[in-house]
Amino acid sequence: MIPVAEALERILSALIPAPAETVSLPEGWGRVLARPVLARVTQPPADVSAMDGYALRAADAAAGARLRVIGSAPAGHPFAGAVGLGEAVRIFTGGAVPPGADSILLQEDATAGDGLVTPTEAAQKGRHIRRAGLDFAAGDAVLEAGRRLSARDIGLAAAANHPWLHVHRRPRIGVLATGDEIALPGDPIPPGGIVSSNAHALAALVRASGGEPVVLPIATDDRDAIAAAAEAAARCDLLLTTGGASVGEHDLVQSALAPQGFSLDFWKIAMRPGKPLIWGDLRGTPMLGLPGNPVSALVCAVIFLIPALRRLSGLPAGPVETRTALLGRDMPANDRRQDYVRAELARAADGTLTATPLAVQDSSMLAALARAGALVVRPPHAPAAPAGCSIEIVDLSSLGV
Amino acid sequence: MIPVAEALERILSALIPAPAETVSLPEGWGRVLARPVLARVTQPPADVSAMDGYALRAADAAAGARLRVIGSAPAGHPFAGAVGLGEAVRIFTGGAVPPGADSILLQEDATAGDGLVTPTEAAQKGRHIRRAGLDFAAGDAVLEAGRRLSARDIGLAAAANHPWLHVHRRPRIGVLATGDEIALPGDPIPPGGIVSSNAHALAALVRASGGEPVVLPIATDDRDAIAAAAEAAARCDLLLTTGGASVGEHDLVQSALAPQGFSLDFWKIAMRPGKPLIWGDLRGTPMLGLPGNPVSALVCAVIFLIPALRRLSGLPAGPVETRTALLGRDMPANDRRQDYVRAELARAADGTLTATPLAVQDSSMLAALARAGALVVRPPHAPAAPAGCSIEIVDLSSLGV
Repeated sequence: MIPVAEALERILSALIPAPAETVSLPEGWGRVLARPVLARVTQPPADVSAMDGYALRAADAAAGARLRVIGSAPAGHPFAGAVGLGEAVRIFTGGAVPPGADSILLQEDATAGDGLVTPTEAAQKGRHIRRAGLDFAAGDAVLEAGRRLSARDIGLAAAANHPWLHVHRRPRIGVLATGDEIALPGDPIPPGGIVSSNAHALAALVRASGGEPVVLPIATDDRDAIAAAAEAAARCDLLLTTGGASVGEHDLVQSALAPQGFSLDFWKIAMRPGKPLIWGDLRGTPMLGLPGNPVSALVCAVIFLIPALRRLSGLPAGPVETRTALLGRDMPANDRRQDYVRAELARAADGTLTATPLAVQDSSMLAALARAGALVVRPPHAPAAPAGCSIEIVDLSSLGV
Repeated sequence: MIPVAEALERILSALIPAPAETVSLPEGWGRVLARPVLARVTQPPADVSAMDGYALRAADAAAGARLRVIGSAPAGHPFAGAVGLGEAVRIFTGGAVPPGADSILLQEDATAGDGLVTPTEAAQKGRHIRRAGLDFAAGDAVLEAGRRLSARDIGLAAAANHPWLHVHRRPRIGVLATGDEIALPGDPIPPGGIVSSNAHALAALVRASGGEPVVLPIATDDRDAIAAAAEAAARCDLLLTTGGASVGEHDLVQSALAPQGFSLDFWKIAMRPGKPLIWGDLRGTPMLGLPGNPVSALVCAVIFLIPALRRLSGLPAGPVETRTALLGRDMPANDRRQDYVRAELARAADGTLTATPLAVQDSSMLAALARAGALVVRPPHAPAAPAGCSIEIVDLSSLGV
């Protein structure tokens, strides 16, 4: 059994980011930049007014002075002339400051009429003017490669005049569920069988992490069926299987794929749930074999697949993020396996999070997992933890899982 | 000027959730359930083994006893007979426990050969058996209406045998940018003009919150153009405008729309940035008019549009969630407007968040906003806050904004 951190390290070191593709600006949200975005314009392009008011020379504009309004400068309609002695130009937010003017008098600090404006407060030189390039200058790298684009970033790329973005292709993840006992939802259920849930839960997790799932037809517990299904994964960036990862006689994934050129890296991890986890390479396609129990499959996917998806997406990769919460009940000391304990997560009015482990931790219980908002992380040999202590958790909902 | 909380209350009370549509299970991730999901099957459907081993009668299985192996029960292949005195059935995880058996002997607690199995540890009655219905029973409401579906939920709906889900339609949000000075990215920029960023930043925010943006062609600062563009919003669940919300002569949205049947609810909010914000109704379509400054537009969208989108999506609606962080520098006392201060967010190795307000808070600065991960919330008349104190923030990245 190898430790979780070493397993993750071996997985990440085998993966490289998917290549770039060009998408339109609106498609860029949530995608990861493959190239930096360099500003193609300067913003603002010239000195502009930050407020509605009058552009004038501060030296002319003592309180009570009378200035002649010689024109106007709305945003997008620069005034054609210059502001001279005793003159003012009506200006609006975003309007270009005309040559000669060195200050903006706020409209609420003035009285106007008959082509004249009178300051009620003296104007101050340089006030309420946004200088050219205040936000960014042409050529500035406004967004770095390797960044997942937020709505703010999309606005910034737009302002920098980019109708197209170069982003990493979404990693394509083949999802192969195996087992004689499973049927797709709504399909006839074989005697003694159950409805397949892993493939679609994992596909949703792949989507939540920015990947593109390819759900392969279920393979029965039969060497030929598994080998044929895995063949379909040749054009995927990663093949995910569920079921068949442990050592029972009916765990066939490893034995079915060995003749297909599968090369195993490791398959036993010191964690709970999920000890039997396959990691290897199927003729150039990285392969992650998850346990068949739905809870084990999802927990292993959170711990290993989400970081793998980030790496394939071009993001900086490392362990899935954790945060701290208060423990809602006493926990016993842990053994040598890293434990991920399903817990209900409650948020108090003051923002304090409390994670209370569920009484039953059976790895087949999907309804309990859906109710649980978090996994409490218990390192190997962690001592007993009393209720109320601070504890490390993975917040599942914030991951879309 | 009305307080932020009252403005939000008036916005939310005017909105109703979008009606339901039917989507396939894989499309359900991130959508909001319009009806509860009732389990159509019992899970597990019968008593099944939780481990690989032997199904037998505990009373027969003292250490050293010899039991006859009469068959096997892999998952999906129930054993056809019953387990009698001195008999055992080879069983695998998920396999149905045959009639007569009352315990599972783990394979690592047994030696087997020649059609016989010998316990090395005594079996215990009821051990390693998952009872029928342990996870859920047919008819149980496993997922409630009004819930945004996580990957776990998709797995649970699958296990409950639902190939289809009934979810709220994504709210359709018309996005109308106004202004003579703006051009789409890559299009020719008029003299004195800038590149339009608001519409696409807001469209990305709509997408991040589960809505469907409809980006309308830019309307020039002209009553007819704005009126015609707004007409296009008749089939949207909400019309969003940017620009033209304040009182300057070139702020036309209100005056252009009044003859079209626009009824104003309010338009001045005690907040910064973003005081001029229009809320009203355009012949049955709710309309939110955001300021034209990109930072003001995005901050107002976070505070008002995200909760509005949640309400339209069928989620429980309320203020956008905040959390606490340590303040990275001293802040002065606040005036009567609620302030949303752009701040860089840093996370220490121990998980502590520190929010450090940017030195320049100009509401035109998109590059600074993109760098800032958070808004520090400063209520009206908040006293001066020293560096190191605990402060309320909105974490923009966690919202996809």
